[in-house]
Amino acid sequence: MQMLDLAQQAKAAALRLATLPTETKNRALFAVADALIRGREPLLEANREDVIRTSKLVERGEMARPLLDRLKLSDDKILAMAEGVRSVAELPDPVGCVLSALELDDGLEMTQVTTPLGVIGAIFESRPDAVPQIASLCWKSGNAVIMKGGSEAQMSNRFLGQLIRDAIATVDERSVDAVQMVETREDVNALLALDEYIDLFVPRGSNAFVRYIQDNTRVPVLGHAEGLCHAYVDAHVDLAQAVAVCYDAKVQYPAVCNAIETVLVHRDVAEAFLPMLASAYRQAGVEMRGCEVARSIVPEMIPAVAADWETEYLDLIVSIKVVESLDDAIAHINRYGSSHTETILTQDAESAIQFLNRVDAATVMHNASTRFADGFRFGKGAEVGISTNKTHARGPVGLDGLVIYKYCLVGQGHIVADYAGPNAKPFTHQPLLDRGAALAKAL
Amino acid sequence: MQMLDLAQQAKAAALRLATLPTETKNRALFAVADALIRGREPLLEANREDVIRTSKLVERGEMARPLLDRLKLSDDKILAMAEGVRSVAELPDPVGCVLSALELDDGLEMTQVTTPLGVIGAIFESRPDAVPQIASLCWKSGNAVIMKGGSEAQMSNRFLGQLIRDAIATVDERSVDAVQMVETREDVNALLALDEYIDLFVPRGSNAFVRYIQDNTRVPVLGHAEGLCHAYVDAHVDLAQAVAVCYDAKVQYPAVCNAIETVLVHRDVAEAFLPMLASAYRQAGVEMRGCEVARSIVPEMIPAVAADWETEYLDLIVSIKVVESLDDAIAHINRYGSSHTETILTQDAESAIQFLNRVDAATVMHNASTRFADGFRFGKGAEVGISTNKTHARGPVGLDGLVIYKYCLVGQGHIVADYAGPNAKPFTHQPLLDRGAALAKAL
Repeated sequence: MQMLDLAQQAKAAALRLATLPTETKNRALFAVADALIRGREPLLEANREDVIRTSKLVERGEMARPLLDRLKLSDDKILAMAEGVRSVAELPDPVGCVLSALELDDGLEMTQVTTPLGVIGAIFESRPDAVPQIASLCWKSGNAVIMKGGSEAQMSNRFLGQLIRDAIATVDERSVDAVQMVETREDVNALLALDEYIDLFVPRGSNAFVRYIQDNTRVPVLGHAEGLCHAYVDAHVDLAQAVAVCYDAKVQYPAVCNAIETVLVHRDVAEAFLPMLASAYRQAGVEMRGCEVARSIVPEMIPAVAADWETEYLDLIVSIKVVESLDDAIAHINRYGSSHTETILTQDAESAIQFLNRVDAATVMHNASTRFADGFRFGKGAEVGISTNKTHARGPVGLDGLVIYKYCLVGQGHIVADYAGPNAKPFTHQPLLDRGAALAKAL
Repeated sequence: MQMLDLAQQAKAAALRLATLPTETKNRALFAVADALIRGREPLLEANREDVIRTSKLVERGEMARPLLDRLKLSDDKILAMAEGVRSVAELPDPVGCVLSALELDDGLEMTQVTTPLGVIGAIFESRPDAVPQIASLCWKSGNAVIMKGGSEAQMSNRFLGQLIRDAIATVDERSVDAVQMVETREDVNALLALDEYIDLFVPRGSNAFVRYIQDNTRVPVLGHAEGLCHAYVDAHVDLAQAVAVCYDAKVQYPAVCNAIETVLVHRDVAEAFLPMLASAYRQAGVEMRGCEVARSIVPEMIPAVAADWETEYLDLIVSIKVVESLDDAIAHINRYGSSHTETILTQDAESAIQFLNRVDAATVMHNASTRFADGFRFGKGAEVGISTNKTHARGPVGLDGLVIYKYCLVGQGHIVADYAGPNAKPFTHQPLLDRGAALAKAL
């Protein structure tokens, strides 16, 4: 069974990669970046095949044109890829960090140290630049990765996978199997069953695709199916600022998960705010679907139906609802939101605190555009995706979400029998921050 | 549908509990502790019914006698329960802690703050003391909990659940639904499907039971199915110390997950060590199953078969294998171990470092008994269980494993369009530790 072999190879490589020194890992990343620059011509050649094949699909109307833009590589894009890999090399190593250190008793010391997860299954859309980005994040965090990109990018991805493996081989040949590429849906289906070897799936793509992965594996899945985000315009608000943020959050890039789908407006400000918002949206060609109260103020809005409050348009469409209170806005968001990113526009500090506290979402904002919810903007260097999970990692996930920890307990022959029964020794439980750091260096 | 109602009530209560002040949460816990003391008599009465019913099963041989000891309450056990709840009240609040704080740009500040997970499903064995322990850990961490205890403890659990809810009601009546009890397997099966309302399952019990939960829900599951732990006795070792640790790790409490099942011995020390170990184990009545080399040294051992290396005995049985090297020991552990707890006995610092680094387990130890892997001993106050997961929380899990985080971004009308395109403003990405702490206090 081919996928089993591949996953076993990845697992073995992951055990090796877990203890590779930071310097070696970084050297390999710089080798990948250099190889990208040197391999520019054949990479563009491989990419041309993908583009020609996909252009025909676009012409026949079987594929959307924007996909072609994301698929097509250029000298500039390859330079940016190489730069991205170098910037991951320059990030701090997330492995081997001491999270806590405690003396349990004299000579019995515990250190909690970050470790890689093991093997990551990454499945993503047809952007060839995702291959070096995801590979470098996984590699830096000491994880093996099995990647499946969009089939439109097959030749580009195949070339990139081999290029990365070859570059790694020049630095640490025995870790080459830490980067693996697979190409078909059947391969992915086979991988979903290999929970003994794969520790985390990170799928990116359509809602239906992410749900399919979640429903068909015992392996934990990191990511989000839906990005149903809201902006709430509170009663005491800077109207111009609120219009600017609602505009940015819808129009600046409507096809992405952190764009808003619904604007909620406090009734006290609806008459002043909605005509201003409608004017801005009208000029950008945004289709507005309003509740009855909103339509009584801006009659040009299309009537919103129940489904509008639970639809992620991913397009220049917005639903607009007038609410009675902050409480109603929070209740609406906690009911219909996808726990992705939610923002309040208000000049009232108490409303802001209530909103930030009570809205249940990975990222909550005050007077800022939801579009800021992104690994790069959040200072993580890069991201593997945005998580709406409640466990492990939430929001934009960078290197920090690709590690876990182990407890290391070092004693001098300590046994539990001495700490049990009527003459039990007590534990000291003294924090040991400096010595923990020293131990971590030793590891 | 009754379980749906119950889960929805729990979810609503969880949203409320998430923002309850620490002081209020602690007051409720002290009220629970007081109620346990006051309710001693009726609780013992309810427990007597359980004990009588279960005694009949034990007499008929349908149930093991040790279960009866765990089921039976006493004045001392109730005092210990109340003390346990008070000690959870005295632990630091894990909610509202600032994990990181970053200025993205002038006036645009991000804080990563811990939050509860939401609703926990806890399913556990027939120890009534698990009810106040798990309820208090979930409550303190701001999570609603739906509990299902062993059916033998049904009357005790029912009484305890009501006692806890009544005590909470005296402090914050609207949070009462944050603690729910269910009683049947059918209830549990219905809950497994409610991934929209339940955020984490924490099952404790047999391997088969935990696997059943893992296989039948989309909700993340925290815990462990198997505890297949090893002690490795290295070439340069303090023989007496190694015997003492191997004895403690097997004999002190053989029925628990952090007891060892296999002793691996370096061949250079096998002739000196194995007779000493066999003598100690013999006196404790431990059945030894050895590999061929081990049996050539201690002929009284029963021949080990392949299945012995992958069996969690949970009893006074141990398998013993002589290995060629440290590498072989690590390979054996990474192949057969359940990533729970592994220990090396050695006086060689380099061997210890190799072992701690390369063994893939939640807890790795040097010259200490695996039996130390426990939330209380690890200074967490109490534990909900021990996790062999690779994501979210690993090893003994206390309050720290019952929280996640949200990102709070506070701006002044900041929009992403200003940070994109040819005239993009740069981000400052300046750490803001003090101001982050201030913001967290405001929340």
